[in-house]
Amino acid sequence: MTLQERDKKHLWHPLKQHQLSPNSLAIVKAKGCILTDENGNEYIDAISSWYTCMFGHCNDFITSRVYQQMQQLDQVMFSDFTHEPAVKLSEELIKILPQNQNRIFFNDNGSTAVEAGIKMALQYYFNLDEKRTTFIAFENGFHGDTFGAMSVSGLSVYNGPFEDFLMDVKRIPTPNGKNHQEILAKLKEYIENYKIAGFIYEPIIQGAAGMKIHNAAGLNEILNFFKINNILTIADEVMTGFGKTGRNFASDFMETKPDIICLSKALTGGLVPLAITSCTEKIYEAFLSDEMAKGFFHCHTYSGNPIACSAAIAAIELLQSDEIQQNIIEISSAHKVFENHILKHPKVKTARSQGVIFALDLNTKMERYGNLRDKLLKFFMDRGVFLRPLGNTIYIQVPYVISKKQLQKVYDTIEQSLEII
Amino acid sequence: MTLQERDKKHLWHPLKQHQLSPNSLAIVKAKGCILTDENGNEYIDAISSWYTCMFGHCNDFITSRVYQQMQQLDQVMFSDFTHEPAVKLSEELIKILPQNQNRIFFNDNGSTAVEAGIKMALQYYFNLDEKRTTFIAFENGFHGDTFGAMSVSGLSVYNGPFEDFLMDVKRIPTPNGKNHQEILAKLKEYIENYKIAGFIYEPIIQGAAGMKIHNAAGLNEILNFFKINNILTIADEVMTGFGKTGRNFASDFMETKPDIICLSKALTGGLVPLAITSCTEKIYEAFLSDEMAKGFFHCHTYSGNPIACSAAIAAIELLQSDEIQQNIIEISSAHKVFENHILKHPKVKTARSQGVIFALDLNTKMERYGNLRDKLLKFFMDRGVFLRPLGNTIYIQVPYVISKKQLQKVYDTIEQSLEII
Repeated sequence: MTLQERDKKHLWHPLKQHQLSPNSLAIVKAKGCILTDENGNEYIDAISSWYTCMFGHCNDFITSRVYQQMQQLDQVMFSDFTHEPAVKLSEELIKILPQNQNRIFFNDNGSTAVEAGIKMALQYYFNLDEKRTTFIAFENGFHGDTFGAMSVSGLSVYNGPFEDFLMDVKRIPTPNGKNHQEILAKLKEYIENYKIAGFIYEPIIQGAAGMKIHNAAGLNEILNFFKINNILTIADEVMTGFGKTGRNFASDFMETKPDIICLSKALTGGLVPLAITSCTEKIYEAFLSDEMAKGFFHCHTYSGNPIACSAAIAAIELLQSDEIQQNIIEISSAHKVFENHILKHPKVKTARSQGVIFALDLNTKMERYGNLRDKLLKFFMDRGVFLRPLGNTIYIQVPYVISKKQLQKVYDTIEQSLEII
Repeated sequence: MTLQERDKKHLWHPLKQHQLSPNSLAIVKAKGCILTDENGNEYIDAISSWYTCMFGHCNDFITSRVYQQMQQLDQVMFSDFTHEPAVKLSEELIKILPQNQNRIFFNDNGSTAVEAGIKMALQYYFNLDEKRTTFIAFENGFHGDTFGAMSVSGLSVYNGPFEDFLMDVKRIPTPNGKNHQEILAKLKEYIENYKIAGFIYEPIIQGAAGMKIHNAAGLNEILNFFKINNILTIADEVMTGFGKTGRNFASDFMETKPDIICLSKALTGGLVPLAITSCTEKIYEAFLSDEMAKGFFHCHTYSGNPIACSAAIAAIELLQSDEIQQNIIEISSAHKVFENHILKHPKVKTARSQGVIFALDLNTKMERYGNLRDKLLKFFMDRGVFLRPLGNTIYIQVPYVISKKQLQKVYDTIEQSLEII
């Protein structure tokens, strides 16, 4: 029996309507930018397995470090103990995170990093004897699938069954360079009428919304507004973190820094789950007290898992290497050339890029999960390129180690695909 | 600078009031049942690093399998693809899970396994055009720290800042063999007045509540009540799963099986985070439709991570070995002998054990995180035993590979500690 057949007996895949798409392609091997299926077909992983394996799959530098760690210290409770991989990772992260960040709090995935961020903000004010209960977020933001994270997500794809349980969140549009007065008016209305605990946002690029890029100067003004009004800001850099925008973090493009940052995905270079909610010393200090109850009682069993931390330390070392930094520059330049070229195509409505992230919107209506999207996905896979359209957006987010030839194939395949629309 | 000193600069530990406990002991090595700190002191890990490393730390059988997997396929998106480790793990799990379970849905930790379970139950009825919005749970249950999981947890330690955002949950006491009529009356009242979507419970043993054991026959009657009334049941076996109760799962002690089971912790034998929400085919089928929106749109990036799956497959193979099964029997018997012995001590109010889990309640009042608890923790650590009292409960949950001599030392240390109370 093939893996694909065995898969159907007991597995339930996420984000999938099994009746419409009963088959899952079985991948047996991954190395560098290449995924190999059980029939020996190869695919360029042009979205880095959801923005994780930025240094290539099964990267020897990372896996050898992880193997060493596995033989030394696999897991220990982070509530009572500490260890070298967590300490070292905190030191390395603080060096590259925005300067105002000073504390590293561990969890396991983007959703829980957001849950911890939301809870930090609520309890920050609670500890200061202020009750604040409402969050502000961007329209079409995406922050995860647990109840707290779903609440702040504006992009409600199929959240119908859960809507009764989502907390109250006020929305603003993303800044486009022209709507600042409109945004400011909304913000003023919100802070007059609600007790605002925080603003959560994907800085510069909204991932799940379709790699939508917004105005950095406008975002900076929004962040300033919150700073002046003593409202905490939470940057969700789960997708944007670790070099993808051309800088270490998307927050590096704004002068005003967030109070809290959520990190995951590329943090471990695509090896194993790990997430972090970082924050300023001011927030951490609001939890210091002789009262036990003012501490932060959020914990996951594998918090600060040494194996995951060792992968993250290796990944950050790679990120800072001259080679990877040079690759990021080269991919960014290549994207700009492709952007200017493809913009002239009549089937392309808009195109944009930022660092290694490129996206184009098709000049056609397309459902998030519809027939045209499936047809495109098949077209790409048949030609050995794994790309995953979102609505009418085709986007690229390649590993930093992609070769020029592989990248050109990704571009060519996208251009060819426009003919079938 | 020591690791302990470096730790204080940037790390924020969970479940810790840093002002009262500024130091975290730095662990540099773990092997089998022994943790070694940065000063060379050794500690028996008598609670298996929160019930995870049941086959001993840095288990060579598990780590060598994981290293092989890391070189072959590290990570691939489980929404679009499948792979051997996920398929094999699903097959092995279905063999040992309660017979009515047939589907494996992946996530990353106990909290998200519970979030997925809650969402499955809500959407199950939603997909059948029935709106049900209330859950029933045990008093003092604990199910995790994300908003959905916090909601169903009855054990509200320091949840003050978040209470406004928790969904409505009705509570029943755990069955003690005498309160069945009382429980039944409450259940009848609840189903008459609310649209009940599900009952979530830790079967037989409530972990965070202090390893409280309840009546299996009584629980079976409760499960029957829900079955007759067509209400889904969700067993949270995050703590109890994988042999700790003396059987593979705590649910094996009841004739009536849950519709949904949450698994994590020992699933990977203490290597890396991984969680699973399993369910019956009936639930899975309610999500099959030509409508995309009836699918289950809950996903974490590393869902079904091949590395974590390979650790889990190795752990399940170990669990089923004659050696481990024999060890479980021997530890269970030793616990019973110690239970009968220690019960006679005047400082001991009650004692109980189930499989490799042992607990005693002290004949004294003690805060969950108070001075006496800290004094006991220090007493244990000074004698080379890591035990972590919960309120006035001292409990043991040793790795299956503990030696007779190590286990005796754990017992002796507990007995000696009673003298300082």
